[in-house]
Amino acid sequence: MINWNNMDTLASYQALKNTTPVDLAAVMAGEQGAYRVNNYSASIGEGLSFNYGARPVDDTILAALKAFAEEAQLAEKYEALYNGAVINTGEKRLVLHHLTRGQLGEPVIADGIDKRAFYLEQISKIKDLVAKVHAGELTNAAGETFTTVVQIGIGGSDLGPRAMYLALENWAKINGKHKMKAEFISNVDPDDAAAILDRIDVARSIFVLVSKSGTTLETLTNEAFVKDALAKAGLDASRHMLAVTSETSPLAKSDDYLAAFFMDDYIGGRYSSTSAVGGVVLSLAFGADVFEQFLAGAAAADEIAKNKDIMQNPAMLDAMIGVYERNVLGYATTAVLPYSQALSRFPAHLQQLDMESNGKSVNRFGDPVDYATGPVIFGEPGTNGQHSFYQLLHQGTDIIPLQFVGFKASQMGNDVLIEGSTSQQKLCANVAAQIIAFACGKQDTDRNKNFEGGRPSSIIIGEQLTPGALGALLSYFENKVMFQGFAWNINSFDQEGVQLGKVLAKRVLAHETDGALKAYSDLLNI
Amino acid sequence: MINWNNMDTLASYQALKNTTPVDLAAVMAGEQGAYRVNNYSASIGEGLSFNYGARPVDDTILAALKAFAEEAQLAEKYEALYNGAVINTGEKRLVLHHLTRGQLGEPVIADGIDKRAFYLEQISKIKDLVAKVHAGELTNAAGETFTTVVQIGIGGSDLGPRAMYLALENWAKINGKHKMKAEFISNVDPDDAAAILDRIDVARSIFVLVSKSGTTLETLTNEAFVKDALAKAGLDASRHMLAVTSETSPLAKSDDYLAAFFMDDYIGGRYSSTSAVGGVVLSLAFGADVFEQFLAGAAAADEIAKNKDIMQNPAMLDAMIGVYERNVLGYATTAVLPYSQALSRFPAHLQQLDMESNGKSVNRFGDPVDYATGPVIFGEPGTNGQHSFYQLLHQGTDIIPLQFVGFKASQMGNDVLIEGSTSQQKLCANVAAQIIAFACGKQDTDRNKNFEGGRPSSIIIGEQLTPGALGALLSYFENKVMFQGFAWNINSFDQEGVQLGKVLAKRVLAHETDGALKAYSDLLNI
Repeated sequence: MINWNNMDTLASYQALKNTTPVDLAAVMAGEQGAYRVNNYSASIGEGLSFNYGARPVDDTILAALKAFAEEAQLAEKYEALYNGAVINTGEKRLVLHHLTRGQLGEPVIADGIDKRAFYLEQISKIKDLVAKVHAGELTNAAGETFTTVVQIGIGGSDLGPRAMYLALENWAKINGKHKMKAEFISNVDPDDAAAILDRIDVARSIFVLVSKSGTTLETLTNEAFVKDALAKAGLDASRHMLAVTSETSPLAKSDDYLAAFFMDDYIGGRYSSTSAVGGVVLSLAFGADVFEQFLAGAAAADEIAKNKDIMQNPAMLDAMIGVYERNVLGYATTAVLPYSQALSRFPAHLQQLDMESNGKSVNRFGDPVDYATGPVIFGEPGTNGQHSFYQLLHQGTDIIPLQFVGFKASQMGNDVLIEGSTSQQKLCANVAAQIIAFACGKQDTDRNKNFEGGRPSSIIIGEQLTPGALGALLSYFENKVMFQGFAWNINSFDQEGVQLGKVLAKRVLAHETDGALKAYSDLLNI
Repeated sequence: MINWNNMDTLASYQALKNTTPVDLAAVMAGEQGAYRVNNYSASIGEGLSFNYGARPVDDTILAALKAFAEEAQLAEKYEALYNGAVINTGEKRLVLHHLTRGQLGEPVIADGIDKRAFYLEQISKIKDLVAKVHAGELTNAAGETFTTVVQIGIGGSDLGPRAMYLALENWAKINGKHKMKAEFISNVDPDDAAAILDRIDVARSIFVLVSKSGTTLETLTNEAFVKDALAKAGLDASRHMLAVTSETSPLAKSDDYLAAFFMDDYIGGRYSSTSAVGGVVLSLAFGADVFEQFLAGAAAADEIAKNKDIMQNPAMLDAMIGVYERNVLGYATTAVLPYSQALSRFPAHLQQLDMESNGKSVNRFGDPVDYATGPVIFGEPGTNGQHSFYQLLHQGTDIIPLQFVGFKASQMGNDVLIEGSTSQQKLCANVAAQIIAFACGKQDTDRNKNFEGGRPSSIIIGEQLTPGALGALLSYFENKVMFQGFAWNINSFDQEGVQLGKVLAKRVLAHETDGALKAYSDLLNI
């Protein structure tokens, strides 16, 4: 029996609040520090591990987090989710993104069909199409092969797939897997589409229109923009366009598309990179085999997230430490700092994933909660960030918990030895140094050069950023966000907060405004 | 006589704290809202205006901010700065970035020379070189023209120039000003340099090495990486490389470079886009005339920032409203949301500018301050962000003040009319709608669909993102950050917080570590 209770009604949460905070600078010093680094670690899957040596916990707090996770029934709620419960209460929907990459529990039958079979069917359809494109069997009207794939989508149809593409682009080039260049059009700003169309060969491009509802303003507008460009180039748009949508959408059975691939209402946009939303563009770019490795990595991490023992379940543990930092220690913001240029847009994806899922003020039943929920998430790759906003992280007046990501090997293997070390070693040395600088600080009588320390971080360490590792990393954060949503007793799977702006924008375009909205519309010459 | 006092010692700040907060949803309703939008506005220069109708102020609070700005002597401190006072107390340096684009006050003589003349001389030298490159007089050894310019730099030598390049790339293409493609190598991650080198024609590329000290680890490492690639291609590196550095740096008089252009210790990296740091790459990319328009725009905004009346000085007013939001209302984070895809990396530049300048806990004399200083800054272009993290901005438990930017016209002029409106109109309609949605909210008996409102924002509105408008926008934010630093009585021009990490990273690479640092180094295989 699952109980959906607000966090502040749980005895274990009250007990957590009564634990004594850790003096991070003290416990990270000397051999105790080394012990923590070597022991505060758990496997994520695909060779990745979550190291929380420098997070503000000790064995007492970990025990309290374990009790909290158990009383909040996090493992049971995850189980209910993947077995097909209506977890998205607001929209009365199942939450099935895990099923796009593996069967974690019982078969899920919804709308009269086995959903795992449905998702597998989409992958299979994608695989067939991709094989034809790569083999030159499906070409443009002039018989030329397609060299570029352009995703037209916004939000979850853009950020996740784009971050995944960038994460694997160089890996694919080195490993002979870079089949097609991918581009992305998202913004309704006409300069976005115009710039992309300006730099590609439209005649040899295939466009993937991604909209679950088939009604997204930006996406339909950009589709029209692209069709206009195709027409001007004397090309038949229907030979250049694919659709990814739901079966009930107006796009599903239109002759305007070469083919349509389906997702459904049980996969939120921000959780859709492992569905057809990511599948079509990533498979066209890298081949279906690479996409399958990516899915296998995600499935491996999903399996580990089933572990009922929080100490063996890093996504759950990370989630609970995050709640402790947010609600007990009062830290409002979290930075994500991958030491990997390939993950340049991964923080933007996580920003959506986390903030759109858990930026809520009411619980699953619509009642206001009396505690802070999702933090602000931001980040840039290291070492770039070190020369930018790290100043505030080290010496600012607020403490910002940090999530580092690092890999032992680069993707391309092209490196130089300068002053006895490679660039990859310098990169890794910097992330190690930062963790200690943040945690331990350094006393200086010149207060301007003083570092207080006590600034928590964790690091996810992998061997190399491969498709499998990327899948595990993606799924890890999805599950972390899910567990935090469970702890806060909120619905992480709707996004009612995006609706009002849409309604008002339509009113502006219809010139049905007054007061301040009319005044802004006038100032902007609409 | 200027007094440098902590904010909490000022009577006017205490008075500000005693003002009654504004009920934003109430005052933005009806005709009062329209009145605010039409009257709470000030000119930034170059056709840009700052509209603060939806910020949480009223005439009483504005009067308090005016008194606060006067008691804090913001205008006098700016005047002292541009007249050559040692404003960067920690490093005992002048702060002269304004002088790279105009003479705001008295001649500034430092190190025995007139600094304005020195900066003009650099611009002149850049202009000469650029003319030769564009005319095909300066070529590679095979006599071929250069088609690509690659900036090698990190932090301020990367983020600002990169954001400026991206901001003008499409404008330049449409206006016949796109002379060379620019690329940027920054991260010590070897995959960054390898990927850029992989996609350019190195034989026809000119590289700009940017490091004030000539000792930046990442930049020197990437220089070696590039030289290695040039050598492998059988090219003479010294025919492909320029340097931007200080006159005292080891790079200044080296035969390794075709030419060297100078900045000095009086220009912080994050304030250097208008110096040779931005000047070489932007002039090569777009021509020296475009760079001069950019400088003229910055100079115009600098002039407006001299205004002693805060109501006619939007950078100062924005700064003070920000301090009110941060310290009186307690908002910890600020989002920057340009409704312009061309400004995709402008928030990353502002993130450095603001967080590195004002992420400090001690005042200019090294004494701890008892109030919060610089907020966390993050942002992405709209409408993209609407489909991502705006959920939390609308319905999350924290209030995040927002800074929108919008332009009436697109850069490329290529647009489509769908359902009676262009994409540009849809873009502008969305930003207008968002301001009202955040400020006014919307009551709903379904609490999940309820918007509380009361979420403040301002918008900078321009005609079009031109070189001049971009210069004004850049300078506007630099001056805002400067005024906030003055109010907090901190030194916005040093960055001691980046030092400790550098020291520890060297220790890791030298294998001179123990305890937790050695443990992390081992985990990362260093």
